[in-house]
Amino acid sequence: MIGIFDSGVGGMTVARAIEQLCPEYPLTYFGDIARTPYGSKSPGTIKKYAINNTRFLLEQGAELIVIACNSAASTALSTLKNSYSVPILDVINPAVNQAAVISKNGKIGVIGTRATIKSGIYEQGISRQRAQYQVFSQPCPLLVPLVEEGWLKKRETKMILRRYLHPLRSRQIDTLVLGCTHYPLLKPLIVPRIGRRVHLIDSSVEVAHAVLSFLNTHTDLAEKLYNPGKESRFFVSDLTETAGHLAAHIFGRPITLEKVNV
Amino acid sequence: MIGIFDSGVGGMTVARAIEQLCPEYPLTYFGDIARTPYGSKSPGTIKKYAINNTRFLLEQGAELIVIACNSAASTALSTLKNSYSVPILDVINPAVNQAAVISKNGKIGVIGTRATIKSGIYEQGISRQRAQYQVFSQPCPLLVPLVEEGWLKKRETKMILRRYLHPLRSRQIDTLVLGCTHYPLLKPLIVPRIGRRVHLIDSSVEVAHAVLSFLNTHTDLAEKLYNPGKESRFFVSDLTETAGHLAAHIFGRPITLEKVNV
Repeated sequence: MIGIFDSGVGGMTVARAIEQLCPEYPLTYFGDIARTPYGSKSPGTIKKYAINNTRFLLEQGAELIVIACNSAASTALSTLKNSYSVPILDVINPAVNQAAVISKNGKIGVIGTRATIKSGIYEQGISRQRAQYQVFSQPCPLLVPLVEEGWLKKRETKMILRRYLHPLRSRQIDTLVLGCTHYPLLKPLIVPRIGRRVHLIDSSVEVAHAVLSFLNTHTDLAEKLYNPGKESRFFVSDLTETAGHLAAHIFGRPITLEKVNV
Repeated sequence: MIGIFDSGVGGMTVARAIEQLCPEYPLTYFGDIARTPYGSKSPGTIKKYAINNTRFLLEQGAELIVIACNSAASTALSTLKNSYSVPILDVINPAVNQAAVISKNGKIGVIGTRATIKSGIYEQGISRQRAQYQVFSQPCPLLVPLVEEGWLKKRETKMILRRYLHPLRSRQIDTLVLGCTHYPLLKPLIVPRIGRRVHLIDSSVEVAHAVLSFLNTHTDLAEKLYNPGKESRFFVSDLTETAGHLAAHIFGRPITLEKVNV
């Protein structure tokens, strides 16, 4: 099946998007809640965790890996591609491609964790496709804790978002990449603060489209992975109440989280 | 020497307080930044990490262990005491004792991480000493990320604090236990919001007094640990910029963090 990993529960927005686009392909999800978050940690530590997670998914029988965590993808994608022969899709490149196509004025904003922004991966990806485009990046380290607390409508969250988005707004970006899988849950708060004319690129949706198009162009693998009767499974390295609530919120139904030691 | 561990850098407020009270006793600090934070994780996971950390400090030659992390102390203290013969002091009991002595009206507030508050350890400790006292607890999960971001004076931090402290204030507590090692850094913001007449119990300061009194009553061990020439060492499981800044802020001088794999 398709294996997906994330630093925690946020990557379930990716799993949910893939499920909606490719419902006949069962998923095995792994969320590294015992070590979450990744976004505030060093590249070396994130790489180590990404390798552990990939190994776990391969042991479960994954034949296609999706890195659903921006922090992991931005620091560990090339390490993983060099270490494993299985195809690996990530949450960043599809969003980069979409941003490069969508932007008209060539001013693109990116928000993400500290690790993702520091990696410079979005700037590099976009400038490889559109050398003249300008990319303005903003680390937003408090958004993940706010989402995990379920503070999706609180005044404090709105204020913090305004503070983070202000520098991007003043640059008159026309496209904003949501470079963290938690951020789609904040869309209703982001839209009025960045401006309704700014296109939001949801990396979760874009990677789901990338998975679909990969399956369409790799029919041998697609046939192997096709299994409409089989249910997706959700593994986590730690079981917490908050995680259960957030998973149910993302999927709109209760999700059984299975604890494993990795 | 004296070994201290914490989930990250917050426990350095404890190390700093011990250093000031017992400057002749070198410390070996371990901050588990690669797995931080503990406060949002499950008791089983926190116990596993606490055992790892203790083992590391014993390997370094620690002969007295201080659990500087409230989340770890509240869930793993008895496990550690049952597993190791070395004396173990923790950040909770000294604060409990002080709160029981200081409170006049018998209404005590406790703030901490989700794990600490859920453990009920402060209520149990205080009611063991003063059965008639009332303890009102409030989990404050966003305070650690706010402190780690250095948002010590921001308006959003003040608003979030007001939201967290309001239920305690309306109970007319006369004593508030800062049940997380990050919180002393927020004292200037907490005082006006909880009310200037409320006594704040700083668990970092209280555990330092407990260490001093332990050394005074265990002279054989104290003699072994006495080593005024030796510098304290600070080990971490991950090296990040934020950690370096926070450590320097807490100690008021640059601190060399040494990365180790545990």
